[in-house]
Amino acid sequence: MASSPKRSRLRVDERRRQLLELATKLFAERTYDEISVDEIAQAAGISKGLLYHYFPGKRAFYVAAVRHAARQLLDETDVEMAPGSLPDVGAMRRGIERYLAFVERSSTAYAFLLRGGMAADAEVQGIVEETRQAFLERMMAEAGAVGDPARLRTALRGYIGFVEAASLDWLEHRDLSRDELAELMVNACVSLVSSAL
Amino acid sequence: MASSPKRSRLRVDERRRQLLELATKLFAERTYDEISVDEIAQAAGISKGLLYHYFPGKRAFYVAAVRHAARQLLDETDVEMAPGSLPDVGAMRRGIERYLAFVERSSTAYAFLLRGGMAADAEVQGIVEETRQAFLERMMAEAGAVGDPARLRTALRGYIGFVEAASLDWLEHRDLSRDELAELMVNACVSLVSSAL
Repeated sequence: MASSPKRSRLRVDERRRQLLELATKLFAERTYDEISVDEIAQAAGISKGLLYHYFPGKRAFYVAAVRHAARQLLDETDVEMAPGSLPDVGAMRRGIERYLAFVERSSTAYAFLLRGGMAADAEVQGIVEETRQAFLERMMAEAGAVGDPARLRTALRGYIGFVEAASLDWLEHRDLSRDELAELMVNACVSLVSSAL
Repeated sequence: MASSPKRSRLRVDERRRQLLELATKLFAERTYDEISVDEIAQAAGISKGLLYHYFPGKRAFYVAAVRHAARQLLDETDVEMAPGSLPDVGAMRRGIERYLAFVERSSTAYAFLLRGGMAADAEVQGIVEETRQAFLERMMAEAGAVGDPARLRTALRGYIGFVEAASLDWLEHRDLSRDELAELMVNACVSLVSSAL
């Protein structure tokens, strides 16, 4: 007897998830143009036709992988600070360390998404913007109701730009250790937030 | 008698400069796609054919206008701080005020270049990156030989990301005055640089 629609749906979802994990790894270290659909199918051990069954095309697969990676980044950096606890330097440091671990693991993808050939793709830009917005809302909640909300939001939005630019600089030069960079980012956050209040 | 080659060369240069000034104004408030070559020629009071004599096509014209605007931004914000004078808050504030005046005047172009459809054009991205690099070198010179150069460079590169992200947030929300934003940016620079040293 054929498997029930529900079981088969679960299998499709699980297969999609596995393919996204694979894509996230493949696209982490090489750019969109460097990876062919053939290579993805081969790495997954399935036919190109079956891959197209899960994702209608290479771009759709890539966009899904970016969305998957963005969710991973948000999950991994969620160190569950209590509301109003932003100056909890230990938790902030753990969050930043996990962010930098992600940046290091996905160095090519990170630079490619923020500065490279996909920066003009509206859907990809939308995911990048939504991720920034999620970080902003998390930090606003952690900061709690302190000071002028417009000043705080502007400063935190600026801080996200700081983290991105400093991360890109680090990937380019690699003349600070990851720990040194994390420390610089923690200090920057503390001093930026207190200077904005 | 026809004008000498030298005089005619000067006229060509002057005409190109005038066209770039015009393009900078046109593209400051509307995006690349919103402006046609016809409109540029009409605003310049010349034929489309003559416009193509100065610039081989719309994209080349646009790239030249971006380069022109980037040079303007660097010139206008050059408040001539003495080397080693980075904590000169007054001069820093003047530089930041001029930067924000440029951002306000060129709001559409600013957002379009950093986040929009041209962010993937390699030549345009090259100009944006060169401009960031010029700001970085200026700030490194102003900071002088203090602390660890790698830490200082990373912090200043991050600060440029801060300024860009905070400026984009400001253009989107407009819930701080330009003066309030300038003050926030000055405080951020002082606290970032001192936290990185």
